[in-house]
Amino acid sequence: MDPFRKAIKGYDHDRIPVWFMRQAGRYLPSYMKYRQRMGIEEMMSSPDVIVDVTHDPVDRIGVDAAIIFADITTPLSGMGLRVRFLDSVGPVVENNIEKSGISAVEEFDPSSFSHPVLKAISKYRERYADPLIGFAGGPVTLLSYIISDGVDRDLFRVKRMMITEEKAYQAVMTRLTDMIIEFARMQISAGVDAFQIFDSWAGYLSPGEYEHFVKPYVYDILQELSGSIPTIYFSTMTSSYVADMDLPADFYSIDWRIDMKRFSAEIPDEKGIQGNLDPAIVNYDYALHEASKIVEAASGRDRYIFNTGHGLLPSTDPEKLKRLVEYVHSVNL
Amino acid sequence: MDPFRKAIKGYDHDRIPVWFMRQAGRYLPSYMKYRQRMGIEEMMSSPDVIVDVTHDPVDRIGVDAAIIFADITTPLSGMGLRVRFLDSVGPVVENNIEKSGISAVEEFDPSSFSHPVLKAISKYRERYADPLIGFAGGPVTLLSYIISDGVDRDLFRVKRMMITEEKAYQAVMTRLTDMIIEFARMQISAGVDAFQIFDSWAGYLSPGEYEHFVKPYVYDILQELSGSIPTIYFSTMTSSYVADMDLPADFYSIDWRIDMKRFSAEIPDEKGIQGNLDPAIVNYDYALHEASKIVEAASGRDRYIFNTGHGLLPSTDPEKLKRLVEYVHSVNL
Repeated sequence: MDPFRKAIKGYDHDRIPVWFMRQAGRYLPSYMKYRQRMGIEEMMSSPDVIVDVTHDPVDRIGVDAAIIFADITTPLSGMGLRVRFLDSVGPVVENNIEKSGISAVEEFDPSSFSHPVLKAISKYRERYADPLIGFAGGPVTLLSYIISDGVDRDLFRVKRMMITEEKAYQAVMTRLTDMIIEFARMQISAGVDAFQIFDSWAGYLSPGEYEHFVKPYVYDILQELSGSIPTIYFSTMTSSYVADMDLPADFYSIDWRIDMKRFSAEIPDEKGIQGNLDPAIVNYDYALHEASKIVEAASGRDRYIFNTGHGLLPSTDPEKLKRLVEYVHSVNL
Repeated sequence: MDPFRKAIKGYDHDRIPVWFMRQAGRYLPSYMKYRQRMGIEEMMSSPDVIVDVTHDPVDRIGVDAAIIFADITTPLSGMGLRVRFLDSVGPVVENNIEKSGISAVEEFDPSSFSHPVLKAISKYRERYADPLIGFAGGPVTLLSYIISDGVDRDLFRVKRMMITEEKAYQAVMTRLTDMIIEFARMQISAGVDAFQIFDSWAGYLSPGEYEHFVKPYVYDILQELSGSIPTIYFSTMTSSYVADMDLPADFYSIDWRIDMKRFSAEIPDEKGIQGNLDPAIVNYDYALHEASKIVEAASGRDRYIFNTGHGLLPSTDPEKLKRLVEYVHSVNL
């Protein structure tokens, strides 16, 4: 078995597995070749393009796992939401809650939902043996995309809704939660080896807001998936309270705003940890210095996966990234 | 002596002092009346307008201290930097480092620097008895404004400079550090009662980056001011490592991303704590609930000042803010 599959299950392994969020992204020449020829929606609607873009970092950078190329808004079409990708803005939901009310957010019906990404997962599985990670957005992060035109990144509108329209908030969050569970099951059936929840904007909440308004939904998702697939819960700007979240996730994926030694001491031994390198520094030698500190602090754990603390930047130099992977692989466990 | 002056010095006091970052801001009708008549640069160049805008929240909201109305870029003109305020962009330095090199960043000369804000501090002192807070940006936060057109908020450019051009970085940071110390002394001479360093973007750094590239400068500033004025060090997204900063500040001002109980346990008893309420929720009853938890966790300390975790938003309702102040004042110490 390969190091990623071993590490994510907590089996003995002799090499630290590495992958990067947004490793299939704009910094890669192969990705940009597609982007010059077609829009992002067109790319995401072709299983062959998805498979190709998903696999390239494994060959090109030497990472130990691929993550399926998709967007966190991908499954929203299964809830009656119309998503458009606008240049330099990103995904915009046309019939968002501010425009169309919460009735626009329909129940996700897995029996009628089909998407090229699911076909791409099956194709990837047929074609390649390396580990494949599936994913979905976290419910509150997805809500930030469907509440208004463009993403409510600071969660100002989301906070207003959770506090002043709690019933409507609960209804929408429940639908998103159910969708995420179903969409995860579809990805598992299609063949992914691990499943990551991207709760990228959770860190705009206070620990109290998170505990009361978000945790119950995230908990449900992870509990439902528990046992059927190894799960990773990713969030940023939450590092001071991840240890108190007490979620049934197999791994916590954290940003670079906490010292790994400190974090590792706060998290129970049986939990896996992923991430922690500042993505803004991967082009510099200094990244190897910071990586060595992270690896030293985390490699004693049964389950550690090397990653950046958030997605790779478009300015990432593929050669420097490759060197970083080689460095992490060279560390003796 | 009033509760703010007592609390900031660690003397016994019977009421929790309150003020808010950006309390003299766009949410206030009196402030907007000025803004409709004049540009922000014009406002900041009139001592009488500054005094008026600075004092209004004391009358209108009932806060226990005023903070002088200015921008963190205010003293940059004393270093040969030309700052323009662009609508919906904010301050832009015309001869920034990318355009003009680091030689554009001159040594700050206090003997030739005069600014309406200093006159305004003296005027305020003559006119009002309530506590007045002076401030400056932290050196790395100021660097993010002078490195390129518009603010380098994620510190991508700043990180590149600190890592790949360390000598140039050190030279500029040293000049900024010297300026901040001198500018603080001028404000102290003019009559401020406390001094806050706004290191608003420090939290884009990892703890390791902060320790190596930023802390030495911040430490110098706080050490130089120590004994001459009570100091407050404000940063955001750093809550997981503020306890490890070990700075000679009298107070740490923190954002809302950490539980106050947890934070208070990590910080030595003699240190003051300020902040912690999510500014996005002040309009809702829920703010009183979160405020009560914060106050309960912090009020046992000798030195606690109630504040939001970052600046007030333009959408803040002055009446709701006033109610929040009344609530905090009603808590028995």
